[in-house]
Amino acid sequence: MHIRDATPADLAAIAPIFRDIVAAGDTYAYPEDLTDEQIAALWMEPPPGRCIVAYAGDGPDGGEGALLGTAKAGPNRPGRGDHIATASFMVSSAAQGQGVGKALAEEVLRWATDAGYAGMQFNAVVETNMAAVTLWQQLGFRILATVPGAFRSRHHGPVGLHVMFRELGGPSAESTSG
Amino acid sequence: MHIRDATPADLAAIAPIFRDIVAAGDTYAYPEDLTDEQIAALWMEPPPGRCIVAYAGDGPDGGEGALLGTAKAGPNRPGRGDHIATASFMVSSAAQGQGVGKALAEEVLRWATDAGYAGMQFNAVVETNMAAVTLWQQLGFRILATVPGAFRSRHHGPVGLHVMFRELGGPSAESTSG
Repeated sequence: MHIRDATPADLAAIAPIFRDIVAAGDTYAYPEDLTDEQIAALWMEPPPGRCIVAYAGDGPDGGEGALLGTAKAGPNRPGRGDHIATASFMVSSAAQGQGVGKALAEEVLRWATDAGYAGMQFNAVVETNMAAVTLWQQLGFRILATVPGAFRSRHHGPVGLHVMFRELGGPSAESTSG
Repeated sequence: MHIRDATPADLAAIAPIFRDIVAAGDTYAYPEDLTDEQIAALWMEPPPGRCIVAYAGDGPDGGEGALLGTAKAGPNRPGRGDHIATASFMVSSAAQGQGVGKALAEEVLRWATDAGYAGMQFNAVVETNMAAVTLWQQLGFRILATVPGAFRSRHHGPVGLHVMFRELGGPSAESTSG
């Protein structure tokens, strides 16, 4: 696996993963009928934000395999709130359980810390998405609140959305990964 | 005071209030250098959302005075989160303390309830904005969490942003206003 910044050419690989995950209906509150252009506008965040991709293989020179996952990050709010970052992550169904999400998250946390953000906020983590909740807690995020019934999960019905947060700039939890 | 749906012609009155409130630096995390068109895109929410305006005077036929305030409302998230509403409110500095915010909020809560939303979430209420926090609590909202230091207030420095929430569709808190 290698991780790099996304380019417009990655949209062709990102869009099917985006659509699969949204259609599964258990983790993201995005519309299901988006065009490639709308997916690009939502996901491929321009500076000061960032969109990254994780591919199988060693890299462009060593060959790139399938797209395993993608992440986007940037300021959670503009103006006087732009010192807190946010981020979103998607891992293809074929690549679940291989540490792709963790690798993407460690890269995003490194980037946000280097960029000087004071903290990172996740606005809407589906409470039944235990793989995500557990990973974020391992990476130092805590659940600040759960908005009751705010997500209509395909398999679980109405479930809560966690607001999760961690400070950045101090000793980083991801340093424990070696 | 009368309240009605905003039209594109209201932008000329909304934009100065928007800029004044953002520049004051104590309540909203919006950029300070927005064009009228950018303000319209951020504030004048199209269907299924709604943007309303409160003017002095009895109405178009009886004469409209100064714009006192404005509000926008709509789904807080798309897709599987679109059953929870959100809303934002701005009252001109000249019209503070006259019940404009409360009147706008009651109209927004009526609209959101009639539209079938299950709840309303405020994502970023500045914790030092006591006029707002107190009003929302009077109208049945509770503080679910406070994201620490997430807003750089001009007069208070780094302060928290409350996530506030109330259910809709049950006995409505605004009915106590008669």
